[in-house]
Amino acid sequence: MKVAILCIGDELLKGAVINTNLAYMGQRLLEHGIMPELCMEMPDTPQDVVKTLQYAMDQADFIITSGGLGPTADDLTKQSIAEYLQMPLEMHPEAEKAVRDRWLSLKRGELPYHFLNQALIPRGAKPFLNAYGSAPGIHIKTQGENPKQIFMLPGPPSELHPMFDNQLLPELLKNLDARLHTKLFHIAGVPESRVEERTLPIIEAHPGLSVAYCAAPEFVKLFLKTEDPACLESAKQAVQKEFAKELLHDNVKSVSAEVILLLKEKRSSLALAESCTGGLISQLITDNPGASSVFPGGIVSYANEAKAELLGVPEEILIRYGAVSSQCADAMLEGTMCQFHTNCGISVTGIAGPDGGTAEKPVGLVFIGVKCAGQKLVKEYHFRGSREQVRARTAATALNTLRRMLNGEVVE
Amino acid sequence: MKVAILCIGDELLKGAVINTNLAYMGQRLLEHGIMPELCMEMPDTPQDVVKTLQYAMDQADFIITSGGLGPTADDLTKQSIAEYLQMPLEMHPEAEKAVRDRWLSLKRGELPYHFLNQALIPRGAKPFLNAYGSAPGIHIKTQGENPKQIFMLPGPPSELHPMFDNQLLPELLKNLDARLHTKLFHIAGVPESRVEERTLPIIEAHPGLSVAYCAAPEFVKLFLKTEDPACLESAKQAVQKEFAKELLHDNVKSVSAEVILLLKEKRSSLALAESCTGGLISQLITDNPGASSVFPGGIVSYANEAKAELLGVPEEILIRYGAVSSQCADAMLEGTMCQFHTNCGISVTGIAGPDGGTAEKPVGLVFIGVKCAGQKLVKEYHFRGSREQVRARTAATALNTLRRMLNGEVVE
Repeated sequence: MKVAILCIGDELLKGAVINTNLAYMGQRLLEHGIMPELCMEMPDTPQDVVKTLQYAMDQADFIITSGGLGPTADDLTKQSIAEYLQMPLEMHPEAEKAVRDRWLSLKRGELPYHFLNQALIPRGAKPFLNAYGSAPGIHIKTQGENPKQIFMLPGPPSELHPMFDNQLLPELLKNLDARLHTKLFHIAGVPESRVEERTLPIIEAHPGLSVAYCAAPEFVKLFLKTEDPACLESAKQAVQKEFAKELLHDNVKSVSAEVILLLKEKRSSLALAESCTGGLISQLITDNPGASSVFPGGIVSYANEAKAELLGVPEEILIRYGAVSSQCADAMLEGTMCQFHTNCGISVTGIAGPDGGTAEKPVGLVFIGVKCAGQKLVKEYHFRGSREQVRARTAATALNTLRRMLNGEVVE
Repeated sequence: MKVAILCIGDELLKGAVINTNLAYMGQRLLEHGIMPELCMEMPDTPQDVVKTLQYAMDQADFIITSGGLGPTADDLTKQSIAEYLQMPLEMHPEAEKAVRDRWLSLKRGELPYHFLNQALIPRGAKPFLNAYGSAPGIHIKTQGENPKQIFMLPGPPSELHPMFDNQLLPELLKNLDARLHTKLFHIAGVPESRVEERTLPIIEAHPGLSVAYCAAPEFVKLFLKTEDPACLESAKQAVQKEFAKELLHDNVKSVSAEVILLLKEKRSSLALAESCTGGLISQLITDNPGASSVFPGGIVSYANEAKAELLGVPEEILIRYGAVSSQCADAMLEGTMCQFHTNCGISVTGIAGPDGGTAEKPVGLVFIGVKCAGQKLVKEYHFRGSREQVRARTAATALNTLRRMLNGEVVE
């Protein structure tokens, strides 16, 4: 199945918006064993849209576009594509009702005429109604010798995500070889090369099994694909056995979500004390709806006074060992768990850079403390990279250590 | 100047990596009045690289590639492009020394032969030495009737950013019309449509002035371009007068960085008390190197107990008005400023969703408290959108309110 993605809008090329839609759709397609042939970002002028559509239709059979479906003057995706395909635009009754209802719910007075243009759909095409915005998506099947399918979605991620999952993907998968059986795993805390090595015997034992890897900052995705359901079942069990300690739960897509799930299972709660990560771990935890049931809170203690007064780090530790020390990380850990009355905790203190490093304590030096389920570990790390990378690696390491302890693993 | 960007790598199409390189390069190019003609993401196979390069060379005169320059088997960008352009690869002495020195600095034992392949440069091309990684960038000028320039950069942002700024951009700008004079402004807290309206008289008063807008979540970018330096100077002054209250300092690229700069100027310091943003504001502040001099810390108080015990919110407020109330936001604000001994503070409490809303207190209801320079404001907001959007809008609004107070504006 050859898929191309076109992301339309000047703001992508000007760098005003980061194209997260590509990553979202790429991840969701990969879960079904599909990697797009290419993606193109282009300005929202009709010539650019048509030129890239022509190129994409030469490379792929299924074209997904995002952006340019709204009511304003620069939203020309639909008009350009309809004109190019010689499909006249017609008011679609169901789409019209949905667009009118949407306007009413916004309570902004009389309906401006151009707003209804969003309900114009190319003749013969099908609208995808939009529950989170006003512009419907559109599904076109072209006729002729070499038929193509074009899916148009609105650009805002809050509208694109549900429409992609609930409307586009089911239509797209109808065209997928029905014999294909697939499974996606998330493996945390193992480098991609080690995942490959450890998967090799499973591949050898399962003829006809196809395997793909994909390394993300937090984990490696392992993707199994085969035409034989019994082969998939056996390979799944082998992966579950080999990576028993490292697999995230099915349907869990981040280590922070896994940690929250495990904390709920164990009726435990977590407190944080962050220095160099400055609230990043807290933000990752609270990205997940429902975090409040296991996360009473955390303290961002950038200043030494805050470490002393709010976390109870003894002055002597700060003077003798400094704020970036295992002794301080340990005291911060105990301090925050005491303040928030929790049985699990994470503390972090280090030098994220680019300034503030010394010969003795260089940029990238981080102490991470984790306490949970009868274990406590305070460990020294040396992370490479920019300030952003040091902070991200610190957060990922801290959360994965807690995940392992919650799983009952002995962590050293 | 027609520029195309090619971002190479399966991981972009699989959604394992979000393409932040495009946004980075797009922003930097826009500062010089250049918007790329298009961007393409493609797999790292030689056929795909060559096919998209051909297309890009039809559309543009300057092609920038990112990714695929490393030492591993799937890094084929350079080989593919050199072969297509019929330029033999040769060991470049200066590049070889840099790659050898890089390996030595990694202290990983004997140099593997394939690692040196990174120093192979197409005959006649120029390397861009890499201070933050091992793979050099490459600058090719093709010969013939319709000459093109190709710039290849490594994919990791920590390597691409400095090479783009310090090596690629100066080379690229040599080809820009020398008569062009440009200026970029960041305007915070004004919707794009209002920026356009308020800029209109300035455009009308300055014939020959070209203006572009670009709306980002935190601010609107306003870009001026003209061939007449006197016209630019006059237009700059007019913009500075019109948007005196809303302009960020030159070279400041986020509201959090502006807030830190103003706090330093006023010898002030900031404490945070975050509930529904869960550490996001703290993370935005500490994204900036040097934040520690004005930011002693903050408290993420998700649980009511934490609000009461750590921030001193009276039990009576929590019982009578609830945690999501202006009274609670006010008490959180005073509490955190007292705990961290600061003269400025931000507090946030609300319902980010998707669950937890009621008829009386729906998802999106947020109270933001800001105190600074003799002013205090606790205000109720109703933000639309997903959990992520509600959190992002809350953080942006809180930081912009503080920015305005630090600027001496009376905020209501």
